[in-house]
Amino acid sequence: MSTEKKGTDLLRVTALAGGVGGAKLAAGLAACLPPSKLTVIVNIGDDFDHLGLRICPDLDTVCYTLAGIANPITGWGRAEESWGAYEEIVNLGGSAWFRLGDRDLATHIIRTNRLREGEPLSEITAGLCEMWGIDLTVLPASDDPIPTQVYTEDGILPFQEYFVENKCIPKVRKFRFLGIEHAHPTPGVINAIRAADIVVICPSNPWVSIDPILAIPGIYDEVKQKEVIAVSPIIAGETIKGPAAKMYCELGIAPSAFAVAQHYIGLLSGFIFDIADTVFEKDIKNLGLSTFITNTVMLNENERQRFAQEVIEFSMDLIAK
Amino acid sequence: MSTEKKGTDLLRVTALAGGVGGAKLAAGLAACLPPSKLTVIVNIGDDFDHLGLRICPDLDTVCYTLAGIANPITGWGRAEESWGAYEEIVNLGGSAWFRLGDRDLATHIIRTNRLREGEPLSEITAGLCEMWGIDLTVLPASDDPIPTQVYTEDGILPFQEYFVENKCIPKVRKFRFLGIEHAHPTPGVINAIRAADIVVICPSNPWVSIDPILAIPGIYDEVKQKEVIAVSPIIAGETIKGPAAKMYCELGIAPSAFAVAQHYIGLLSGFIFDIADTVFEKDIKNLGLSTFITNTVMLNENERQRFAQEVIEFSMDLIAK
Repeated sequence: MSTEKKGTDLLRVTALAGGVGGAKLAAGLAACLPPSKLTVIVNIGDDFDHLGLRICPDLDTVCYTLAGIANPITGWGRAEESWGAYEEIVNLGGSAWFRLGDRDLATHIIRTNRLREGEPLSEITAGLCEMWGIDLTVLPASDDPIPTQVYTEDGILPFQEYFVENKCIPKVRKFRFLGIEHAHPTPGVINAIRAADIVVICPSNPWVSIDPILAIPGIYDEVKQKEVIAVSPIIAGETIKGPAAKMYCELGIAPSAFAVAQHYIGLLSGFIFDIADTVFEKDIKNLGLSTFITNTVMLNENERQRFAQEVIEFSMDLIAK
Repeated sequence: MSTEKKGTDLLRVTALAGGVGGAKLAAGLAACLPPSKLTVIVNIGDDFDHLGLRICPDLDTVCYTLAGIANPITGWGRAEESWGAYEEIVNLGGSAWFRLGDRDLATHIIRTNRLREGEPLSEITAGLCEMWGIDLTVLPASDDPIPTQVYTEDGILPFQEYFVENKCIPKVRKFRFLGIEHAHPTPGVINAIRAADIVVICPSNPWVSIDPILAIPGIYDEVKQKEVIAVSPIIAGETIKGPAAKMYCELGIAPSAFAVAQHYIGLLSGFIFDIADTVFEKDIKNLGLSTFITNTVMLNENERQRFAQEVIEFSMDLIAK
């Protein structure tokens, strides 16, 4: 991998990430950059309490992916997982809608216990990352809970009830991140943004993965000072995983790479989108953005790394301008 | 089993039980009596918090045994267990000294969650018993925690740290059940004792399984009003499982069936002990007790049931006197 890293040693990247798409790009970047040069700031709007355990789905997806222990099929949880506890929880009349693997459960038990003892999520995450052998910095966006509320035609739903229990079926109207006006970025977040040569907004859901990061007081303003690029999670009007495209439609916006670029307008200097969306190149350039068109689908580790390398090269070109 | 139940329909039994020995006799009694005629009051002095989860070892051993899902080899936990969560907890630097099986963990997670929501342990236990198909009544002795502190030559240890982490090696001097002076019997305990034709003290550790039940204000005085029999957990100076014999020695008392009978003196009308201890028959009779000598070892379900039937017949003889 040393050849891939050639010329990138001086680039310091801070990535903003949600779940699967963000995790894949983060893992690709981790394969291309020295760990000291990469910080991943992760959405915590999805976090919730379930059976008394604190679950942080995006944080876990990012960490498990970086550690190489993520389940590649489900997009959540651990590979080589067993389900004894979950089966038994269901047998005992416990909640069945959120599946918890046995190994995954260890994360939740340890995290919940440390939170109850007063340790902040960011410190707990740093400790877990060390145990998982993750040597880059992973920061939950805030140590303060900012639970995403999904306003739907069927009423207001906590995010995981919308996402998992209701399978994203209710039509969305807007989102609210409870308590975000009083939330603080975790220690290290502002410095990681300030120190970055480039801030990369990963191909994550703009509404419920990236917005809850940017909406934490202080973060948007810091990001705005930097060179920022985003990767479109929308490819040919669809997403690989998750409800972003469906959300765009329900919010009255045609889902497209262009719509994503518009979402972040004012923040971006560059935008990366899929060859399937070449048709939007002119419109996106007209937003004043540098563009990079490539295959943005990351089906395996090689593709993650190839794509991350392209992201890095596009970033270096932007900075050199 | 209908033949075994002949003549026992009118006998109402309330048993006091700790872990393995108590669980075996309780299961034997459950095979001989209609569920409405049997109540098991279980020690909660061993209960403790571990990784933020509330663990009730005796309660779980009794319930798992009654439900036929106990691990017959370890004496704790579930049969056909997996260890994914525990392995991963250890990988993540979590505490390794107390093993938690995946299916067992479901019990702890559900119980802990309901306790945090304010439900009392007795109600949670009733709910779990229903899910496990246990149709007799199992009552934790109190809904108030009364954690056993073991005063040893090496200092004061919470019970599980003495029992599991330190493998009962430190020499004991005395025991204390923290907060017991303010603890209340769970709803149903006093009534179950009052309604009993016979109170059976199971072959459990007198110091740390039965004493913490009897020492809850109100229980001893109620038990004293009844016909009470005890089964010696000491056989030929030893225990089948657990540190009772070692404790007797360290407390300066020769461990024997006679010592157990003396421990409960003032409370008992009858005492059951093993044929290996026939030598103590005269001494025990001299305490004013009716005696029954039999094979008290319960190696399998048939032996549990045979022994329980003998306990019932001895009880009926006592009552008829």
